Amino acid sequence: MNDIFFNKVTIIGVGLIGSSVARAILHNKITDELCICDNSEKHLSEAKELNIGNTFTTSIAEAVTNSDLIIIAVPVGSFAMVAKEMKSHLKPGAIVSDVGSVKKVMFTDVMPNLPDNVSMIPSHPLAGTENSGPNAGFKELFYNRWCVLTPDMENINQDALHKIDSFWQKLGMKIDIMDAEHHDNILGLTSHLPHLIAWTIVGTAADTEERTQKEVMRFAASGFRDFTRIAASNPTMWTDIFLYNKDAMLEMLGRFSEDLSVLQKAIRNNDEQTIKKHLSRCRDIRVGVIAENQHLPDVKPKK
Amino acid sequence: MNDIFFNKVTIIGVGLIGSSVARAILHNKITDELCICDNSEKHLSEAKELNIGNTFTTSIAEAVTNSDLIIIAVPVGSFAMVAKEMKSHLKPGAIVSDVGSVKKVMFTDVMPNLPDNVSMIPSHPLAGTENSGPNAGFKELFYNRWCVLTPDMENINQDALHKIDSFWQKLGMKIDIMDAEHHDNILGLTSHLPHLIAWTIVGTAADTEERTQKEVMRFAASGFRDFTRIAASNPTMWTDIFLYNKDAMLEMLGRFSEDLSVLQKAIRNNDEQTIKKHLSRCRDIRVGVIAENQHLPDVKPKK
Repeated sequence: MNDIFFNKVTIIGVGLIGSSVARAILHNKITDELCICDNSEKHLSEAKELNIGNTFTTSIAEAVTNSDLIIIAVPVGSFAMVAKEMKSHLKPGAIVSDVGSVKKVMFTDVMPNLPDNVSMIPSHPLAGTENSGPNAGFKELFYNRWCVLTPDMENINQDALHKIDSFWQKLGMKIDIMDAEHHDNILGLTSHLPHLIAWTIVGTAADTEERTQKEVMRFAASGFRDFTRIAASNPTMWTDIFLYNKDAMLEMLGRFSEDLSVLQKAIRNNDEQTIKKHLSRCRDIRVGVIAENQHLPDVKPKK
Repeated sequence: MNDIFFNKVTIIGVGLIGSSVARAILHNKITDELCICDNSEKHLSEAKELNIGNTFTTSIAEAVTNSDLIIIAVPVGSFAMVAKEMKSHLKPGAIVSDVGSVKKVMFTDVMPNLPDNVSMIPSHPLAGTENSGPNAGFKELFYNRWCVLTPDMENINQDALHKIDSFWQKLGMKIDIMDAEHHDNILGLTSHLPHLIAWTIVGTAADTEERTQKEVMRFAASGFRDFTRIAASNPTMWTDIFLYNKDAMLEMLGRFSEDLSVLQKAIRNNDEQTIKKHLSRCRDIRVGVIAENQHLPDVKPKK
C-alpha cells in the first residue's frame, strides 16, 4: 500500500460516518488540515469538543476552498444541494468523493455540478452501526471492511482513482471497483431490501395491541431482535436510500414478494415438501457468507 | 427457588436442545437416572461418547418406563408418534413436558394419547443457536432466558406446574405462563414470521445469477448477514413449526404483506413523508426490546 497525503481534506457532514472518517484521517496523519463542515451548529460544536478536525465551519464554500479531497457524508437526498454550493469554490485538481449507500446519485446529482478540472470518485465504505451523530464515530469503524468505488467507467481518472483507493486502504479497508448501477443492484439486495423488510416487520409488531407488544419485546431474542437492530438505523438517511435506489428496490421487492407468496401458499396447503425444499437450499448461501466473513470481528464502538 | 429432584428423567430427542437440557440436568444434579432416547443410532452414540446421560436407548417404551419426568425434544411433527409410543408405558403420576416452539400441538397431538393419571405441562424454553445435533449443546444455553409454560388453563395441575416451573428455574430460566394459543400468536410474530422472512430473502438472493451471489456474500455485513444467521436453523424443525402454527402464520403474513405493500407503493410514488413516518415510529419498539434484553449476553457455545 502506498502512503497517501493531501494538504487539505474536507468532510461535509459529521454524523457517524463523517466523524469516523475524521478520526481515522487524524490517526493516520493523512492531511495537514482537516476541515469539518456541517449545517448543524450542535454537531459542529460536538465535533470541536471531540477535537476531530483542525477547522470547523457551517459554510460549504469556505470548507471546500483550497481543499484537495472533499468527502460528502450527508444523507444522499442532500447531495445535489451540497454539489451546487461547492461548485464555484472547488480547487482545480480536487477530488470529490462520498460515503453514500447508493451510487448512481453521484452521477445524477453531483457530477453535473462539478467543473471539468475536478475529479469525482464515488465511494461506499460498507461500515456502520445503528448509532448516529458525531459522538457515535470511532476510528476503527472501517478496519477490514469492504469499500466499493464506482468511478465513471467510460472515463476513469486513474490518478484520482488510485488516490481514493489508497486513502480507504490506509483506513484499513478492502477495495472493490464496479459500476454504479451494479453496486445499487447488489446493495439493494444485501442491504436496502433487508432494512426495508426489518422496518416493516417491526412496524407490524408496533401495530399489535399493547399486551402483545410487551411480550414481543420480552421474547424478542427468538429472532425478532436482529430485525429491531437493523430497523434502528437513521430514518432520514434510509428514506433517501430507498428513494434514490427506487428501481432496484421495486425489482427486488417484486422478487421477494413472489417468493414469499410461494411459501405462504405452501403453508396454507400443508405442502411440507415445498417448504422443506426451500429452507434446505438456503444453506449454500449461508456457508458462502461465513467463508467471506469469517475473519471479521463484529465491530462495536469502543467506550 | 425450591430445590427440585426426580428419581428418573427421560429426554426424547438429543439434538441441540435435548443435549443442552441433558447437560444442565447432570450439572444441577436433578436426577439419579437420566435416560437419553433417540431414534438415530448416530446421535445416541454421540451422546454416549459425550457422557451426557446415564442410560441410552432407541426404544421410547423402555425410555419412559418408571420415569418421573419426560421431556419431548424432537421436531413437533413427530410429537403424535412419540405420544402414541409412550402411551401405555408411562408411570402413574409422571409429568410429560416438551421444548417445542409451538404449543397448541401439545393439546392436539400429545394430550389425547396420555392416560388420566399423567400430567402434561407444555414448555417452550426460548433458547437456541443455529447449530444442531448432540455436539452443539451446552449447559449454559438456558441461563437468563425466558421459558413459557402453557398448562391447560381450564384444569391446571398445580403440583406438576410447580415442579416444571422449579425445574426450568433451576436451569437458570425466567418463567412466564400463558395459554397455548396466545403463545403461538406471540411467537408467530417474534420468531416464526422473522424466520420465514429471513429464509425468503436468502432464497431470493440464491436465485440471482452467480456473479451477483458472490457479491451478495461479500457484502453480507450490510444487513443481509443477520438474515442468513436466522435462516441457518434446522429446516425440518422449522417446516414443522410453520405448519403447526399455520393459522397464526397466515394471519401475521397477511398483516406483514399489507404493511410491505404500503411502503412499496410509497417508494413507487416518491412519497417521502409516508416512508419517513413509518421508519420513525419503529424506534419505540426497539427501545423496549433493548430495555427487556439489556442484561442478556449473546449466548455462544463454549469451545
